[in-house]
Amino acid sequence: MTFTAPVRDLLFDIAHLSHWSQVTALPGYDGIGLEDASAVLEEFGKFCAEVIAPLNQPGDEAASHLRDGKVVLPEGFAEAYGQFVEMGWQSLPHPEAWGGQGLPRVVGAAATEILNAANMSFALCPLLTDGAIEALLTAGSEAQKQTYLPHLTSGRWTGTMNLTEPQAGSDLALLRTRAERADDGSYRITGTKIFITYGEHDMAENTVHLVLARLPDAPAGVKGISLFVVPKLMVEADGSLGARNAVRCVSVEHKLGIKASPTAVLEYEGATGFLVGEENCGLDYMFVMMNAARYAVGLQGVAIAERATQRAIAYAKERVQSRPVDGSSREAVTIIHHPDVRRLLMRMKALTEGCRAMAACAAGWHDLTHHGQVEGAAEIAEFLVPLVKGYSTEMGVEVASLGVQVHGGMGFIEETGAAQHYRDARILPIYEGTTAIQANDLLGRKTLRDRGATARRLAAMIAETEAELAAGSAAAQAVAARLTRARGDFETAVEYLCAESDPNAAFAGSVPYLMLVGNLVAGWQLARSLLAAEAAMDSDPAFMTAKIATARFYADHILPETDTQRLRITEGAQSLLDAAF
Amino acid sequence: MTFTAPVRDLLFDIAHLSHWSQVTALPGYDGIGLEDASAVLEEFGKFCAEVIAPLNQPGDEAASHLRDGKVVLPEGFAEAYGQFVEMGWQSLPHPEAWGGQGLPRVVGAAATEILNAANMSFALCPLLTDGAIEALLTAGSEAQKQTYLPHLTSGRWTGTMNLTEPQAGSDLALLRTRAERADDGSYRITGTKIFITYGEHDMAENTVHLVLARLPDAPAGVKGISLFVVPKLMVEADGSLGARNAVRCVSVEHKLGIKASPTAVLEYEGATGFLVGEENCGLDYMFVMMNAARYAVGLQGVAIAERATQRAIAYAKERVQSRPVDGSSREAVTIIHHPDVRRLLMRMKALTEGCRAMAACAAGWHDLTHHGQVEGAAEIAEFLVPLVKGYSTEMGVEVASLGVQVHGGMGFIEETGAAQHYRDARILPIYEGTTAIQANDLLGRKTLRDRGATARRLAAMIAETEAELAAGSAAAQAVAARLTRARGDFETAVEYLCAESDPNAAFAGSVPYLMLVGNLVAGWQLARSLLAAEAAMDSDPAFMTAKIATARFYADHILPETDTQRLRITEGAQSLLDAAF
Repeated sequence: MTFTAPVRDLLFDIAHLSHWSQVTALPGYDGIGLEDASAVLEEFGKFCAEVIAPLNQPGDEAASHLRDGKVVLPEGFAEAYGQFVEMGWQSLPHPEAWGGQGLPRVVGAAATEILNAANMSFALCPLLTDGAIEALLTAGSEAQKQTYLPHLTSGRWTGTMNLTEPQAGSDLALLRTRAERADDGSYRITGTKIFITYGEHDMAENTVHLVLARLPDAPAGVKGISLFVVPKLMVEADGSLGARNAVRCVSVEHKLGIKASPTAVLEYEGATGFLVGEENCGLDYMFVMMNAARYAVGLQGVAIAERATQRAIAYAKERVQSRPVDGSSREAVTIIHHPDVRRLLMRMKALTEGCRAMAACAAGWHDLTHHGQVEGAAEIAEFLVPLVKGYSTEMGVEVASLGVQVHGGMGFIEETGAAQHYRDARILPIYEGTTAIQANDLLGRKTLRDRGATARRLAAMIAETEAELAAGSAAAQAVAARLTRARGDFETAVEYLCAESDPNAAFAGSVPYLMLVGNLVAGWQLARSLLAAEAAMDSDPAFMTAKIATARFYADHILPETDTQRLRITEGAQSLLDAAF
Repeated sequence: MTFTAPVRDLLFDIAHLSHWSQVTALPGYDGIGLEDASAVLEEFGKFCAEVIAPLNQPGDEAASHLRDGKVVLPEGFAEAYGQFVEMGWQSLPHPEAWGGQGLPRVVGAAATEILNAANMSFALCPLLTDGAIEALLTAGSEAQKQTYLPHLTSGRWTGTMNLTEPQAGSDLALLRTRAERADDGSYRITGTKIFITYGEHDMAENTVHLVLARLPDAPAGVKGISLFVVPKLMVEADGSLGARNAVRCVSVEHKLGIKASPTAVLEYEGATGFLVGEENCGLDYMFVMMNAARYAVGLQGVAIAERATQRAIAYAKERVQSRPVDGSSREAVTIIHHPDVRRLLMRMKALTEGCRAMAACAAGWHDLTHHGQVEGAAEIAEFLVPLVKGYSTEMGVEVASLGVQVHGGMGFIEETGAAQHYRDARILPIYEGTTAIQANDLLGRKTLRDRGATARRLAAMIAETEAELAAGSAAAQAVAARLTRARGDFETAVEYLCAESDPNAAFAGSVPYLMLVGNLVAGWQLARSLLAAEAAMDSDPAFMTAKIATARFYADHILPETDTQRLRITEGAQSLLDAAF
């Protein structure tokens, strides 16, 4: 099945949901127009559809693996990556100072979604490089930036994040990898890191590992973690590549999905590393990188949902089975005519577009944060990150599963392709912090810490949209009513959680809270989309009509789920905590 | 990880939810006591845990496949199947007249769940044999019964169901396989059948295919379908096995899950078949067989949920990660202490036990139907089949997915085993009729056809339980309140659907209706369990306390979902039907 980048929808969201005019008025972004974003995304979409997407299914079948101590990537990956680098796609969102194109995050995010929809396994490599760039921009020394950033920005070198160890997953306090000071100011890194995405491969000239490790005299727990940059090939003073560092790949995992992406176990055996930033401050830097990576994983949720939805709609328009339930034909019809198939497809479409809309909105707030010191933007941007990560990835899994269902028995056959999305999607609510970790972040750091202030600001913004809707068309008014109820559930939950003195009881509702707010914010953005679509109807009637229908479906079928989530939070803690196993 | 058959819980349900005393008062079942059921299930549980369960993961890795035209099953399957037959396990629920043990369905169902939890791929073979036995009991001639039933009942021969063709999945009207009358009274069957579970293998002496085909002069559509029995090896007059019939396996599918179970494409090339029952009545017989098979697939949903839950609980009790959120320890604790892990596990447990309880109740009604002519039992039993099939399989997928989540990153690694359940489970809402097909059955045949009469009877029975709860403990009263609301949603939905004149609008809500009623009935059975557990507290305080906690959790966290489903049905049709793709 061919893949088509959803450029039309991405541009709609950029234009109407991302505070585009505010973003492009910021220093550094001024002069960038929608037509520039459109040109970039159209061209990138074409490249992804033609070069990257066709490698998705063969990549899954071949799977990256270790042979004679070397990681073998699926055929075609290295060539495609070469083209990707050649065409400068890695550099899109990165600073011009280091060879990047300096596009706003809202555009970069759209490109990330497209690449991931085309081929999530492939896209993980650039995604991790983005993370390494972010970390070095945040905390790297000038010399480190000079050494690594131009090569990472171009994509000629790739990056990795080394956090997890066998005993330390969600809990980085348990990290054991050691870093010992050497006489030359560098460090010797020793330990085992697992789940290292693209930890070893030869698509690129060099790999730059960012590694969390502990100094001998470091405090216990997370306050004793330092961040190091550890190149696979040492970089000489003149910038040329030297000897191989003492880090090697000892195995590649046999995974449920994203099989083409090599997930490595890396053994550091006194590898030479260089401290990034200050000793014992590694976790702070890593959080910057993680926030970006978490947001990007949220985009992967949207991406897999988009791909699964495209595939399911195409199949439903082609597969002939059963007569229509209303008796309008004596012959079997394509299954897209059956009400429940339409329900499945609309749920897939509405969740995909809702999560995309939320991501676009979040990217806009992030842009406002980084480049314009817009008052209060940082709090909103940070509040949205666990929602984009947590909600969109859970929905990505659901949409991929519904995609299998639309295909019936054929969905269970691997050749069909729907099953791969179901397998690939399953990692998304896990890596870069499970949904529970996102929910802890949303509830603990983003809601309780400021006693609900940011949450209430968000609720007030939603109420503004409701007022606009209530003054509008019948469709807008119908959506307004649903949105008002869902916002009420949010506010009730926030007040309850802020007042709850037993942390066990509060955190028993953490994931229901995340799912409630994620649902609400996605529904809110689709409500804003409805207003924008009504206003822009004449420019593209078919697209705008479909957008309004999607917003209505979301409001009628998905937004009401906030009611049950609120109940779980406010009335469900006791029966959960009473449970015995 | 070891598997333990949930015999304690199964016996609780048999004793308290299946109308056991009424069932065992029926002719044919009299004299069977709970201790007999217990002895059978204990022994079978031990056999499954020791012999069948250890083959589950290796079977997934090896996968059945075609080599040199022969189906190769995973190592150990044939030996284990030999033991299964030797010990007489196939015969448990079948009539004594044909060599069976004649146990009530409620006991047979418990055994089916255990076998499927141990190894779903293995269990499919006996499950299909059960279906073939059911079909021949329903419509086979005396001679056919004599020829096939003793061998199928013993398990020395296995059975298959041949419905699907490439163009005919859910829609059997599109079936093309031809049957031509031969001079000797037999038929020549020609056509391609796909998705034939255990369609070819050599674990058994013979395979008995039940095949739907069309006579040359048959009416078009489903009223022109006949049922044939087509042995793999011809059976001579003296009962000995003769030449191979003209049916061969041309390929074995490469599937997402249940990989050890060979899913065959069978080519019938003028194979000799024998008409079962009357010409052109095949679909009626197949429906009898399908109802049994659908119920059994519902049990597979419970089974995979049980297995996934056992694995997740074991992991959560062992994996140490992060300090408790309430600050009660400075050290990291096992993750089962974290509220959200408890939430995941309780949701898994409650869904598993709720679906099991519903299955036990349904089996009891079925027993009352078949052996006692209990007035009105058939309608209830038939109403429950699409619920057991539709709801329990959807929940099986969800529980398996939550099981992966509990394992975090390890869940995504195939060696862990959680991913296999996620893959295996995904077929359940598809085969033997997708969830949409179950929902059409529930709404069209079981609800609208009698204008809601059976649905209202069920609601009245639920109201009786509510009255008992309301007169009981605080826990019982809390559950009563939730159950009353959920029943109200059911009744509102039934009235709405019965009054809706547009079939598209009614069927737009078919799956939400199925999910609403499935949730309600499972919750109702857990509410009955709570009453039974309170009454039997002294017999096993730990078990009974946990049962009450599960019932409360279900009522607080899962039952309230009926509210959103009702809204989707009563207010969601328009925005669904308006959607354009």
